Amino acid sequence: MTALVGCLGGGQLGRMLALAGAPLGVRMRFLDPAPDACAGHVGELLVGPYDDPELLARLAEGADAVTYEFENVPVEAARAVGALPGARALEHGQDRLAEKELFRRLGIPTARFGSVEDVGVPALVKSRRLGYDGKGQRLVEVVEALGDGELAEEVVPFERELSILAVRARDGATAFYPLVQNEHRGGILAVSRAPAPDAQQHEAEGIAAALLDELDYVGVLAVELFEVGGRLLASEFAPRVHNSGHWTIEGATTSQFESHLRAVLGLPLGDTAARDRVALINLVGALPSLERLLAVPGAHVHLYGKEPRPGRKLGHVTLVGADEDAVAEVAALAAAAWSV
Amino acid sequence: MTALVGCLGGGQLGRMLALAGAPLGVRMRFLDPAPDACAGHVGELLVGPYDDPELLARLAEGADAVTYEFENVPVEAARAVGALPGARALEHGQDRLAEKELFRRLGIPTARFGSVEDVGVPALVKSRRLGYDGKGQRLVEVVEALGDGELAEEVVPFERELSILAVRARDGATAFYPLVQNEHRGGILAVSRAPAPDAQQHEAEGIAAALLDELDYVGVLAVELFEVGGRLLASEFAPRVHNSGHWTIEGATTSQFESHLRAVLGLPLGDTAARDRVALINLVGALPSLERLLAVPGAHVHLYGKEPRPGRKLGHVTLVGADEDAVAEVAALAAAAWSV
Repeated sequence: MTALVGCLGGGQLGRMLALAGAPLGVRMRFLDPAPDACAGHVGELLVGPYDDPELLARLAEGADAVTYEFENVPVEAARAVGALPGARALEHGQDRLAEKELFRRLGIPTARFGSVEDVGVPALVKSRRLGYDGKGQRLVEVVEALGDGELAEEVVPFERELSILAVRARDGATAFYPLVQNEHRGGILAVSRAPAPDAQQHEAEGIAAALLDELDYVGVLAVELFEVGGRLLASEFAPRVHNSGHWTIEGATTSQFESHLRAVLGLPLGDTAARDRVALINLVGALPSLERLLAVPGAHVHLYGKEPRPGRKLGHVTLVGADEDAVAEVAALAAAAWSV
Repeated sequence: MTALVGCLGGGQLGRMLALAGAPLGVRMRFLDPAPDACAGHVGELLVGPYDDPELLARLAEGADAVTYEFENVPVEAARAVGALPGARALEHGQDRLAEKELFRRLGIPTARFGSVEDVGVPALVKSRRLGYDGKGQRLVEVVEALGDGELAEEVVPFERELSILAVRARDGATAFYPLVQNEHRGGILAVSRAPAPDAQQHEAEGIAAALLDELDYVGVLAVELFEVGGRLLASEFAPRVHNSGHWTIEGATTSQFESHLRAVLGLPLGDTAARDRVALINLVGALPSLERLLAVPGAHVHLYGKEPRPGRKLGHVTLVGADEDAVAEVAALAAAAWSV
């Protein structure tokens, strides 16, 4: 009763997949260009480029499933190893234009997009590919022609940012986590709270369900949303486990990592309900004192084993329950160390 | 902010220590005679005898702390690497006579012990050393002389079996988990429930505290207890994390494994309260279908990655909350597969 899962990418998401998999008898093998990829501490690590046919063959050899934890792996590589979620999900997740056209085709509300002229100014101009954590974005105040591989998006006067994590099994069964409310700092997720208070859960599940079914999706999908005038607009999706779902490790019966593994391995899905109010605080760039974090009542500290570097996600802290003093204390420690 | 912990023994307790340590940036190195020791999947594994000086030196090299997950390692080996809990705890934990004399010296109630004549018949005759899971025990109905290294104990007409997990930090701070109620099957733990209903928590904490302080203990200590006429009698203790504490992974804010690592590394202790009623069901000898276990609502499955073998602990399932139907379903699956 041991399963092997191969994974393109060996960062913290892969690491947390491995930690969730170990109790289910799942061992993981990662492929990552970085020899110090932090998932290598908890699984086998193959080091090299994602498109190396020999390494891809080794990644998939004997694996019960192959997945990815990073949506910017080459689609051909994912296809070559039969990765789940499937290549169509990855293609749409890599390209902001394809993603938004998919939203439109499925009738999912989204901000206007196209040329700067189409959306009007001010507009956010984003690279179609390889953007994350707010990178590759610029605000444009006058109409201009777009560069190659750029896309303009309407600047949405949102009330808040939300995300929903959903999972679809091989047999088409689905489950949804409660909506998460996210606060970013300089484009990087800083604090998430789940379940988001007074949120449009039903509407969000409809959006996620439409994507899951259209893409014949298997695994965990994250959809980022804006709340505008009480309505939800889809911003983007990630075909993988997601930072805004890290609270599920302690805050839900089945974590997003376990859900993803259950799905890609064809196992029954688990319970995705939150067990209480949960706060998730990211540690970025530099780490606060571990002693001080651990001294906060109820703090669950997760370090990823990565070298500190400005802008890098190094860990997170989860607090289950409604102890706002504890949340404030961790948030202050994280903010003081935050470095970008 | 990465720590290294060496560990004598590389079984499932070591494996769960490593899984609890990873999020704290703790990496583990194990020494075990078995090349397939299951902690080797989640940490570095040195293979060889516990008393090999060269291996012991490698185990301790660069380690921030050394501990053990098995109380029958040679005391000299533990002393050589400065293992925590300290050698005195290990000496008493290895020898039923020393253990019971310690109980007596500290005024901790315990069943009568000594020769068969001392305790009367029927008596349980146990080997002083290396007994676990009911092994090395026999029931004696007539007075007889004891063999070398044997000890007789009164047969106690207990109402129930309980255990308490306690932890003591390097600075002497202590914390206690709620009492656990244990059911054994053929001497092997089958089901634990925490918190034990209507239990003598205060009395149990007093017993554990006396042991922790007397032994200048650092780490998690488990004390097994009998409830007899509403009073507690100490049966034995284990100077390590303990099977009856596995429910703490999901059922307490800080698991016994994290508590142990925090203690031996000199970090602040965490919250040891149970977050709900919790049931823990052992999987022994053979495994039920993983699909069926995972289909039980709320089941947290923990497999240890060990080859099935009669009498061997292969995994456990934890259920948080009071869903007795789910508990009964998992217990039935476990009982049907149980093999000794």
